[in-house]
Amino acid sequence: MLVELKEQVLEANLQLPRHGLVKFTWGNVSGIDRASGLFVIKPSGVPYEQLKVDDLVVVDLEGNVVEGDLNPSSDTPTHRVLYQAFPEIGGIVHTHSPWATIWSQAGRSIPALGTTHADYFYGSIPCTREMTDDEINGDYEVETGNVIVETMQQSDPSAMPGVLVHSHAPFCWGKDAIDAVHNAVVLEEVAKLAYRSVSLNASIEAMQPALLDKHYLRKHGVHAYYGQR
Amino acid sequence: MLVELKEQVLEANLQLPRHGLVKFTWGNVSGIDRASGLFVIKPSGVPYEQLKVDDLVVVDLEGNVVEGDLNPSSDTPTHRVLYQAFPEIGGIVHTHSPWATIWSQAGRSIPALGTTHADYFYGSIPCTREMTDDEINGDYEVETGNVIVETMQQSDPSAMPGVLVHSHAPFCWGKDAIDAVHNAVVLEEVAKLAYRSVSLNASIEAMQPALLDKHYLRKHGVHAYYGQR
Amino acid sequence: MLVELKEQVLEANLQLPRHGLVKFTWGNVSGIDRASGLFVIKPSGVPYEQLKVDDLVVVDLEGNVVEGDLNPSSDTPTHRVLYQAFPEIGGIVHTHSPWATIWSQAGRSIPALGTTHADYFYGSIPCTREMTDDEINGDYEVETGNVIVETMQQSDPSAMPGVLVHSHAPFCWGKDAIDAVHNAVVLEEVAKLAYRSVSLNASIEAMQPALLDKHYLRKHGVHAYYGQR
Amino acid sequence: MLVELKEQVLEANLQLPRHGLVKFTWGNVSGIDRASGLFVIKPSGVPYEQLKVDDLVVVDLEGNVVEGDLNPSSDTPTHRVLYQAFPEIGGIVHTHSPWATIWSQAGRSIPALGTTHADYFYGSIPCTREMTDDEINGDYEVETGNVIVETMQQSDPSAMPGVLVHSHAPFCWGKDAIDAVHNAVVLEEVAKLAYRSVSLNASIEAMQPALLDKHYLRKHGVHAYYGQR
Repeated sequence: MLVELKEQVLEANLQLPRHGLVKFTWGNVSGIDRASGLFVIKPSGVPYEQLKVDDLVVVDLEGNVVEGDLNPSSDTPTHRVLYQAFPEIGGIVHTHSPWATIWSQAGRSIPALGTTHADYFYGSIPCTREMTDDEINGDYEVETGNVIVETMQQSDPSAMPGVLVHSHAPFCWGKDAIDAVHNAVVLEEVAKLAYRSVSLNASIEAMQPALLDKHYLRKHGVHAYYGQR
Repeated sequence: MLVELKEQVLEANLQLPRHGLVKFTWGNVSGIDRASGLFVIKPSGVPYEQLKVDDLVVVDLEGNVVEGDLNPSSDTPTHRVLYQAFPEIGGIVHTHSPWATIWSQAGRSIPALGTTHADYFYGSIPCTREMTDDEINGDYEVETGNVIVETMQQSDPSAMPGVLVHSHAPFCWGKDAIDAVHNAVVLEEVAKLAYRSVSLNASIEAMQPALLDKHYLRKHGVHAYYGQR
Repeated sequence: MLVELKEQVLEANLQLPRHGLVKFTWGNVSGIDRASGLFVIKPSGVPYEQLKVDDLVVVDLEGNVVEGDLNPSSDTPTHRVLYQAFPEIGGIVHTHSPWATIWSQAGRSIPALGTTHADYFYGSIPCTREMTDDEINGDYEVETGNVIVETMQQSDPSAMPGVLVHSHAPFCWGKDAIDAVHNAVVLEEVAKLAYRSVSLNASIEAMQPALLDKHYLRKHGVHAYYGQR
Repeated sequence: MLVELKEQVLEANLQLPRHGLVKFTWGNVSGIDRASGLFVIKPSGVPYEQLKVDDLVVVDLEGNVVEGDLNPSSDTPTHRVLYQAFPEIGGIVHTHSPWATIWSQAGRSIPALGTTHADYFYGSIPCTREMTDDEINGDYEVETGNVIVETMQQSDPSAMPGVLVHSHAPFCWGKDAIDAVHNAVVLEEVAKLAYRSVSLNASIEAMQPALLDKHYLRKHGVHAYYGQR
């Protein structure tokens, strides 16, 4: 069932430790098959070095486990909410990657300060509001998804492929699981650059809108001319 | 004698350089057999790459060497005090891991700023008071244990598996030697995140208690649902 | 065609990931054959691990592709402008190496604070002004070259082998492609040292001119005595 | 000639890149044979990966090359001055290791802030004054040695095995070349810890003298009890 998707999701999960985005089991990637409305996700708490394709869990958009012997990631309901709210995305990744996480912990959005950022994220990367105690004590992982969706209300998920959850860590997405991980790597790098730039120049402001447009559209617009096409 | 425990303690010691927690010989792990009241500890000043299972030293809770040709770690009396004071722990690790050590040197507790912290440490990780000159010039390693125990008076060692010794470095513990090292790795990561979060937002405050509870209990409470159970 | 130059340019490109200067495809190196007025440059968006000598693109100083099946780097026009303006250089490298990039993002020149800097860069490493919206929306990559040339008006490209582009990242050069990468590695190290030095001592000033002279000329002047000659 | 010493000095030089203390050729180690008054030092500008035992240069304390086909390190006169002034030392190392170098660039001594420091350096690690223009323009490398000796006037080279040269980088020493490199690794770690500790707590003061004494003497005094004896 969904063999190709499972292999892609496995590969995407294994990229997390290779890119230095996770310690122990602190991360999970999923990928969705839009035709069937099923997504494949990492099981909860399984070390990456032991993870095999058959360990992956297949879940439907109501949250039912359709296939798999292990418990799916405890963050599965958050993935589900995002797949429902953002029909254009095909993969989701959650990590506690350290540079992005400090912006979550500081409760600050990451301003667009240079072309590295602008090549992938079209504007400042938003941090959610704090969740209320009711949300935390209620259906916590669903509410985490809801607060991400609320934060993205003014943004296009294709042009802003990630969000920082307040006092927690980032969620990223992409057109598939591999692309989501790629965006998570970029977010981590951009978060590091921004931390140090702010430290060098505390009164720094966002880059010029014209330069943000130029770089984002050079790679992603209909007139994109970066790479081989 | 205690062959299985020795192998576990050896493995736990060898994990220290693999996780980047030590330079040279700057760290030691021990594990205890509660039935016999004996613990196994690294010998003093032996490089990890040369460490063999027969080099480990067996010590009783009065501090007598029961087996082994080498001197036990100079920190052995501190381990002994902790095993006596905290009956629920089975392993102890001491390192000068750099991120945790800077909080010791700065004399500051590490505030709980996010879910990475809350997943393992149930509140802020305390820093001891400075030791008095009498304590330092007296039975120094025993007094180091005593000041840790004093600092933990209000805390449950299972829910707060580590402490920062002022002007020195961290001690961590766990249900066994491997678990103690796991907690030391987490402490190091959490210390790094907190350093940078504070730097990004100097007026940062501890995370919401509801979120701290949620994440700690999601992994450790009787209703825990993280991982495979 | 230009086989030896291509091999050198390939090797120089492959040094970028080895020295930790690039993530993904974020960098490019070129080298010029002054006799023919042709330069060899990395193709756009091709991963380093797949890059082969035949993928490299040969371009003339008017920007025409003379040989190669792939699109040249999108930064090719910037390289072209620099080769035209600085006849003494033989290789150019552009990366988003993180320490140098934060100075670009902060819009600050890197002051000469010590002998590591003075051994290679004869004075503070300048940051360009912001580009105007017209420049950005016009022939952007050519204008990027122009603003670099404008910034270098008072400097000798041999003694100042790199510049920071505002809100973007560094460009470096050298007597050939390998030397350009060498200078990019040094810039990255110097940028890191300066960031932390400024952080330790916010009122820090540039090093003594006599010491700057001594170290630069010890390695590069006609009376240089460093190394084997 | 001095075959054993050469092998030790070679090994000590090769440890520099392994410990991450050098980029390219930015460092050199020497070791002295006190009986003959000859020391062995790295040749200038030779990459570590190509360095062979026969490349090492034998120099006498007047600075004459006694054996070797290559130019000795350009810092050879500094080594010579230190060997003459500090008869108790047997090896010297100079690097631009980044954490120590930022303290040099900031012109600040490294305060003793914790036991990691106290285990090796008995007090704050001094930074020299700026050299005068006459010193820089005169016999520069000899004067570099002189300003180090001047800075060490109140200190015992055995208990303070390193110094920061202002606007430059550290020099360390030890009982032989290997021990000097060991001290250089510790200096680098201590410099990193101090940078971050100061950043966490700007009003931090030196550690308690009693604790400094305890840790230094636990490892180095006549009553030392660390390690296997």
